Amino acid sequence: MDELKKRIIEDGIALGTEILKVDSFLNHQIDVKLFEAMGEEFADRFCGEEVDKIITVEASGIGVACIAAQYFDYPEVVFAKKVSPNTMTEEYYGAEVISFTKNEKSVIRIAKKYLKSKERILIIDDFLAHGQAAMGMAKLVEGAGAEVAGIGIVIEKAFQGGGKKLRDKGYNVESLAVVKSISDGNIEFE
Amino acid sequence: MDELKKRIIEDGIALGTEILKVDSFLNHQIDVKLFEAMGEEFADRFCGEEVDKIITVEASGIGVACIAAQYFDYPEVVFAKKVSPNTMTEEYYGAEVISFTKNEKSVIRIAKKYLKSKERILIIDDFLAHGQAAMGMAKLVEGAGAEVAGIGIVIEKAFQGGGKKLRDKGYNVESLAVVKSISDGNIEFE
Repeated sequence: MDELKKRIIEDGIALGTEILKVDSFLNHQIDVKLFEAMGEEFADRFCGEEVDKIITVEASGIGVACIAAQYFDYPEVVFAKKVSPNTMTEEYYGAEVISFTKNEKSVIRIAKKYLKSKERILIIDDFLAHGQAAMGMAKLVEGAGAEVAGIGIVIEKAFQGGGKKLRDKGYNVESLAVVKSISDGNIEFE
Repeated sequence: MDELKKRIIEDGIALGTEILKVDSFLNHQIDVKLFEAMGEEFADRFCGEEVDKIITVEASGIGVACIAAQYFDYPEVVFAKKVSPNTMTEEYYGAEVISFTKNEKSVIRIAKKYLKSKERILIIDDFLAHGQAAMGMAKLVEGAGAEVAGIGIVIEKAFQGGGKKLRDKGYNVESLAVVKSISDGNIEFE
């Protein structure tokens, strides 16, 4: 997606060889018009897929998922929670994920009543790096007896291997921008 | 807002006298069509206010804020972060807030470059209870020399006093549904 790549080049900040900061339009400050273009692009890429529900994980995925839903005939959006507030008392599906960026292990959870057997679920997330979050969400979906209709990613960092892992497992992964490498402040796309 | 109140009555779960669970459409599963109606209502309520930016706090406020931005001529949305990942290295404005629901103290932060002096900021959040999050966000805004254009809340729990505190300080608080009391599983609106 050219508009997104252009924005990454203009406003993204490459830190070392691993981290790409896109705080100015994706995961701290949000450019809603760009999110609309991304939502439209996801709808194009997954055209023909039946999507009953979109799931994502808090926090950065929520905005992308909500706007994308507008281009998919308004399936419900469910965001997996990383912590369990004391208001979340009922049964849930859980999966352990490691965040390499935050250097922490956490559990992502979706209440059982919001994932139903045989539903077709589109997984949306802002980043795909080592694939932990997407893999965890796929586990939640499949634990419910539902089906992964696809995985839509805003920025895939291909050099961290998560995309390959997911595609090798047979998931249909569509990334709007695929970064091949980050080095010396330079960002190279596939 | 009648559509929202109806939904709260139908799907909200009153726990004890303090907690209102609206996981099925607001803060775990999200009804994007309802969010659109809420965004339109916020635009009506704050009609005439110049809004340069919308801020909220992760995670539940993000969806509401992104959809609301579509009805305000697309100001940028910035969500305050509750934790500091190691990618957030630059200067930030911070405010301490207590979550009574989660029974924890945290710091909410916005990077300095995303709040500018003299900007008119609309604060959006899903819940207003004791007013901690909204008060914290107002502190971030004012710390930047920017101005609070208004505070838009989806559900205000009036009996927890946050709304009164904010209005006493002179803020223009608009809540789409104001809950007067919760008891015996009953939800009463003002």
